[in-house]
Amino acid sequence: MDHERIAVLAHEKFPDRAKTALGVMRYGDQDVCAVLDRDCAGDRVRDHVPDVTDAPIVESFDEAYAAAGGDVDALYIGISPIGGGFDESWRPDVEAAIEAGCDVVSGLHYFLNEDNELAELAAEHGVDLFDVREPDDDLTVATGGSGDVDADVVCTVGTDCSVGKMTASLEVVAAARERGIDAAFVPTGQTGIMIAGWGNPIDRVVSDFTAGAVEDMLVAVGDDRDLLVVEGQGSIVHPAYSAVTCGILHGSMTDGLVLCHAAGREAVHGYESFSLPPLADYVDLYEGLAAPVNEASVVAGALNTKDVDDDDAAADAVAAFGEEIGTPAADPVRDGAEAIVDGIVGAGLGAAAPDGGTDGE
Amino acid sequence: MDHERIAVLAHEKFPDRAKTALGVMRYGDQDVCAVLDRDCAGDRVRDHVPDVTDAPIVESFDEAYAAAGGDVDALYIGISPIGGGFDESWRPDVEAAIEAGCDVVSGLHYFLNEDNELAELAAEHGVDLFDVREPDDDLTVATGGSGDVDADVVCTVGTDCSVGKMTASLEVVAAARERGIDAAFVPTGQTGIMIAGWGNPIDRVVSDFTAGAVEDMLVAVGDDRDLLVVEGQGSIVHPAYSAVTCGILHGSMTDGLVLCHAAGREAVHGYESFSLPPLADYVDLYEGLAAPVNEASVVAGALNTKDVDDDDAAADAVAAFGEEIGTPAADPVRDGAEAIVDGIVGAGLGAAAPDGGTDGE
Repeated sequence: MDHERIAVLAHEKFPDRAKTALGVMRYGDQDVCAVLDRDCAGDRVRDHVPDVTDAPIVESFDEAYAAAGGDVDALYIGISPIGGGFDESWRPDVEAAIEAGCDVVSGLHYFLNEDNELAELAAEHGVDLFDVREPDDDLTVATGGSGDVDADVVCTVGTDCSVGKMTASLEVVAAARERGIDAAFVPTGQTGIMIAGWGNPIDRVVSDFTAGAVEDMLVAVGDDRDLLVVEGQGSIVHPAYSAVTCGILHGSMTDGLVLCHAAGREAVHGYESFSLPPLADYVDLYEGLAAPVNEASVVAGALNTKDVDDDDAAADAVAAFGEEIGTPAADPVRDGAEAIVDGIVGAGLGAAAPDGGTDGE
Repeated sequence: MDHERIAVLAHEKFPDRAKTALGVMRYGDQDVCAVLDRDCAGDRVRDHVPDVTDAPIVESFDEAYAAAGGDVDALYIGISPIGGGFDESWRPDVEAAIEAGCDVVSGLHYFLNEDNELAELAAEHGVDLFDVREPDDDLTVATGGSGDVDADVVCTVGTDCSVGKMTASLEVVAAARERGIDAAFVPTGQTGIMIAGWGNPIDRVVSDFTAGAVEDMLVAVGDDRDLLVVEGQGSIVHPAYSAVTCGILHGSMTDGLVLCHAAGREAVHGYESFSLPPLADYVDLYEGLAAPVNEASVVAGALNTKDVDDDDAAADAVAAFGEEIGTPAADPVRDGAEAIVDGIVGAGLGAAAPDGGTDGE
């Protein structure tokens, strides 16, 4: 999956409810030539989001194609309705993209490849439909292979879902690269996969193969890098999703943990009868659970302060958070991830092997 | 899945490598009218296994059918080769069973329902093929519903795979019933499902739905019982399978834990480079991880002493194990599970609600 110029579908949801679209625009290597949103067609991206590359917002794929002078490689579905279904109002755009020779990339539960009309049209036009939520069918159980890769491994772990683990991971990779560390992002969810252009959607993998699907990724790229930052999912005490979290933790055989939290969050998102335990308990739980498979400490914290309006209050919250977990901390969006990389490097992680690499390189 | 009279296929593997066959014979409610094993055809079950109901061992399904005077409801596949494939040498027996009007029950990875020849034959004869490793397709995420069932919930948790969690669970249910407690077994693996006649194969469920698939079972039966004993899987520090373990722990919202261990086990089975942590660490990890979702203590221990030859040495090992984890303990096979039930009852679990039930009953 390697597209240089893409259009992003975000009908009626750009920008606030178009998390995938924004993620790709902010962190992907792809050049976004247009955003499809019939509700704000005619605006520019810059009118709504200041910190990403500007592009026109258009009504349809045909308009995007025209605006890009026909130089488009793929249409990315940048939104996901509750339930992950396919909205029939998108079909003309998807068909137009296929007919124009573009691949289509989707993170929906609804698989485009299982839609006979779209699959036939794609075959006819020689383009690929990428359903990034569909795991490879050759995944299997973990063997402990993640422990053998040359790269150091850091995993972002959360106090809850939706606290910013993907963003923290991507910002850490960017900041580490700034510092000359050969770092790579290892995606585990559909948005991360669409940004990175590869990866296994861990939450869709059979539970027996959860750790194995993580290992599969680390083994694929781990000998070519000095630092891998594995995108965490859920939380180890989540009433519904902890299995995914646990499989990523052990499958990655991580060397370091970045604890991610959202300022002010006190109960599990969507499961409000479950209170979040104290931050110190998370440190103990993640470290205690990691240790028998591979020793790992919490080396830094990432605090999401998007619900804190004031910069001073946010800085105070970050300072208090770092103090509570006993590591460097930052809001990677507000502050950048330098302090988090300080924690990683301070723990001895991310340096190239002293001999300049091993036989695996 | 409700069969009264069954034949069990165990070709070339009865009894020592026929774990599923033995489990069904020992714990299932089904009446086993014959075992198929061409290697020891002509023997009796009693010649090999002293403590289960006797039955003839025969060469083929046709012989089993004749021996049972045609009174057979189903053929159970009681063995599972490495990899879970279907051995073509079994096909004549499976076909003969279908042609005789019998259902066929299988825990193989290879799904009988996806074998066109067998599926067509079954349709023609109006019988069902049960692939117990295939999860229901209507499973979804957990909602926390396990916390609302009337029954108290106990989960067997292990220091490793293959330490006897299923056996401990079944023995605890039997011993609790002896004591007048309305207890039920909640199966999570294929052998448990074949024994119980229902259940979700948790290791085959998509990781996002792991906890939900457990909840689905508890909600289905939890209001009709005083005690549910949930079969655990793997171990919370297993390099490959911990996701399954974690999903069962949180999905069951268990009230009590029975820690299961195999005497003498020092490293992860099949992953010998990973040492098992001290027993006290398991207690801390399981209790610490359970608490944010539902408070639960280790209330008893089950030690598998099958590799300890001497009864005195086994008793010493059980005593040392119980002392180390600070609870009553037993080898449920050698000693029965009374001491384990003591621990469960001593923790206040398994008693009927004082008012004789709630509106859910």
